[in-house]
Amino acid sequence: MTLPARAQEPGTTTTISTDGAGAVRRTVLPGGLRVITETMPTVRSAAFGIWAGVGSRDEAVADAGASHYLEHVLFKGTETRSALEISAAMDAVGGDLNAFTAKEYTCYYARVLDSDLPLAVDVVSDMVAASVNRPEDVEAERGVILEEIHMRDDDPGDLIHDEFALALYGDTPLGRPILGTEESINALGRDRIHGYYRDHYVPPNLVVSVAGNIDHDEVVGLVRRAFARHLTGDAAPAAPRVNGGPAPVAPSTRVIDKDTEQAHIVLGAAGVSRTDDRRFALGVLNAALGGGMSSRLFQEIREKRGLAYSVYSYTAQYADSGIFGVYAGCQPGKVEEVLSICRDEVAKAAAQGLDDEELERGKGQLRGAMVLGLEDTGSRMSRIGKSELVYESLLPVDDVLARIEAVTPDDVRAIAHEVLEAPQALTVIGPVGDRDFTL
Amino acid sequence: MTLPARAQEPGTTTTISTDGAGAVRRTVLPGGLRVITETMPTVRSAAFGIWAGVGSRDEAVADAGASHYLEHVLFKGTETRSALEISAAMDAVGGDLNAFTAKEYTCYYARVLDSDLPLAVDVVSDMVAASVNRPEDVEAERGVILEEIHMRDDDPGDLIHDEFALALYGDTPLGRPILGTEESINALGRDRIHGYYRDHYVPPNLVVSVAGNIDHDEVVGLVRRAFARHLTGDAAPAAPRVNGGPAPVAPSTRVIDKDTEQAHIVLGAAGVSRTDDRRFALGVLNAALGGGMSSRLFQEIREKRGLAYSVYSYTAQYADSGIFGVYAGCQPGKVEEVLSICRDEVAKAAAQGLDDEELERGKGQLRGAMVLGLEDTGSRMSRIGKSELVYESLLPVDDVLARIEAVTPDDVRAIAHEVLEAPQALTVIGPVGDRDFTL
Repeated sequence: MTLPARAQEPGTTTTISTDGAGAVRRTVLPGGLRVITETMPTVRSAAFGIWAGVGSRDEAVADAGASHYLEHVLFKGTETRSALEISAAMDAVGGDLNAFTAKEYTCYYARVLDSDLPLAVDVVSDMVAASVNRPEDVEAERGVILEEIHMRDDDPGDLIHDEFALALYGDTPLGRPILGTEESINALGRDRIHGYYRDHYVPPNLVVSVAGNIDHDEVVGLVRRAFARHLTGDAAPAAPRVNGGPAPVAPSTRVIDKDTEQAHIVLGAAGVSRTDDRRFALGVLNAALGGGMSSRLFQEIREKRGLAYSVYSYTAQYADSGIFGVYAGCQPGKVEEVLSICRDEVAKAAAQGLDDEELERGKGQLRGAMVLGLEDTGSRMSRIGKSELVYESLLPVDDVLARIEAVTPDDVRAIAHEVLEAPQALTVIGPVGDRDFTL
Repeated sequence: MTLPARAQEPGTTTTISTDGAGAVRRTVLPGGLRVITETMPTVRSAAFGIWAGVGSRDEAVADAGASHYLEHVLFKGTETRSALEISAAMDAVGGDLNAFTAKEYTCYYARVLDSDLPLAVDVVSDMVAASVNRPEDVEAERGVILEEIHMRDDDPGDLIHDEFALALYGDTPLGRPILGTEESINALGRDRIHGYYRDHYVPPNLVVSVAGNIDHDEVVGLVRRAFARHLTGDAAPAAPRVNGGPAPVAPSTRVIDKDTEQAHIVLGAAGVSRTDDRRFALGVLNAALGGGMSSRLFQEIREKRGLAYSVYSYTAQYADSGIFGVYAGCQPGKVEEVLSICRDEVAKAAAQGLDDEELERGKGQLRGAMVLGLEDTGSRMSRIGKSELVYESLLPVDDVLARIEAVTPDDVRAIAHEVLEAPQALTVIGPVGDRDFTL
């Protein structure tokens, strides 16, 4: 059973679904803090996450990179713990403590043995709820962030995706890199970082998600204690972000001349948003076009012609937009040939869709990958936490599988026509001088 | 209970241990093919792997890269399946089919839903047992391998580890890169690749390992059918490789001037072999020195000074040698400062070992990571398959945990003294011109 998540009153607990290994339960605490858990009684571990509904697309130009910068600073100390005390507590039990920042959310998580869950709740909640963001820590972390930017710049297979977002969305919140730029990071001071923290890390904008060998009521008790002083008032949980309709897309071509061995290519267009019903059909199309070793692009570019080691297509979804992209890394002298094959395959799929065998294989691939991906506590924690933040309600696994199964050849043809014939953005990084790769 | 694995007669099955989630069982089939399984009754998936006891250190200079090249070619087709039929079979069920080549072994594996195990056994076994290595496929794959080499060259954080092996072991089988070189790959013809396959992919040199919701006898039945024509004769399983005593180490300094944003550094020395009893003490030392966020190197270089984003220490083990290394990526102008901190911390640990708190934390970190890592079928498959190939017997998880627990401060001091005061190799990649980084 799926309940509209937003209808729930603070202070109450609801059973959201009972699919898969165990029940999914949700409690809204005073102040609007949500706790969502999934029990997996057969494992001996637990994954604990806190999701904040803030990411790089919430940043003003002057704040570019602030969400990610703040994510780093939250590891630097709380009112009662130093950075060393935070990391030592988790290292001592072999826990995996980490965080990541995306365009629309930020997540802090720890994976631990089930008996260590109280420690994980205490440490991660403390980081998020009682960060002090000391000026000297903000300063020290600036160097770390700059090195992270430099590391990204040294890995063209990573850099190209940031460049492609700029090619597709331009200099907009969705187009700009999550890491910010050297200039923006150097300009961000402690007060802005701390202000960003105060503004965004508030109970209605946070979701606690836990999966593993856990008890919902016990988790809620631990979270209540850890967030105690924040659990006041009658604020309701924040609604999923809307961002005012489809993000404008102005596809362009970016060619970055760089002294690398390979040329790295991304060709793509706007995909669909994460609430778009056509996302399942696009998923099947993506699987068949470039999602696996049997896909058209892998077969044509790698298997038959040996032109690339890494070649794949992918999708990304945001609240109001999405990406469909094709990546390949090849010899600099082969860019035109590889691009021509990519464009041919895209045009063929846009015109004719998939054959029946590809359609069934694409569905099987999505189904299998989804079910296989749900065996570890981290994936389950991510699924329920992210859903709680970005969807009106959690779609049970069986419903997702049914939606995949229901995709028809016409659905695929329609989305292929729409996405693959949309204006394309192109990014090339490599020793290509000022060569022109437009059609 | 742990039995000496080599004592087992072909055609018999033994229960090796019953630790963790389920029993580990081992069958030796005629011809010397081993099948080792671990039941995990609470999962719904299975990981199936075939391990070959051959890797880049078995290559003559003229064959450099042949093990890895062959690994690629095995995906290209069998007597009855094309490359597309291999990949389509696994994509259709959402299976994760892949392979990797190391210095001392090669592994082919698939992770699938338990109901798809017969398919995985059939496909992966066919790849390994009935590969045809067609000349045209070897040719097409040459381009793919060259692109894999170029991709490695474009990622300095990856390249540096290959360069470091050369700095430590020189131009020897352990020192040379797994991928080979452009020259060696261009020189390898179909006959050499096929000969390499015929020589090394023989039943006594292969181990089948399976973990998940499986039944040992059923797996053995499937493997018998898949390998049927190879299961003849009375060859015994190959003994673990010995390689004739400690690999000679001749540490040197390699400075590679390259136009990157960061300078990438690895400083290290010979560690211990995988059968060396001191590996548990070295593991604890490694955890405390650079294994986690609370480690000395992370604290000194990243947390306090913000000099690096990525900084860690690591160990690698081979049959007769090992590596202890420290990696950091930093501004090119900060290499001397970062190196100086690394050398200070290494010297301090070599002279004084660890304090009690670090020792306990290091043990906890190894214990927790080990237990957490055993929840997925892929990790369990790897543990038993690799053990079967490289050890005389499988060390049960409880025994490993006991060995970690038994590490004393004196053990750590002794191994720290030995490894950290050994002659050091150094590799730096970055825009550093001809700067001299020797002490």
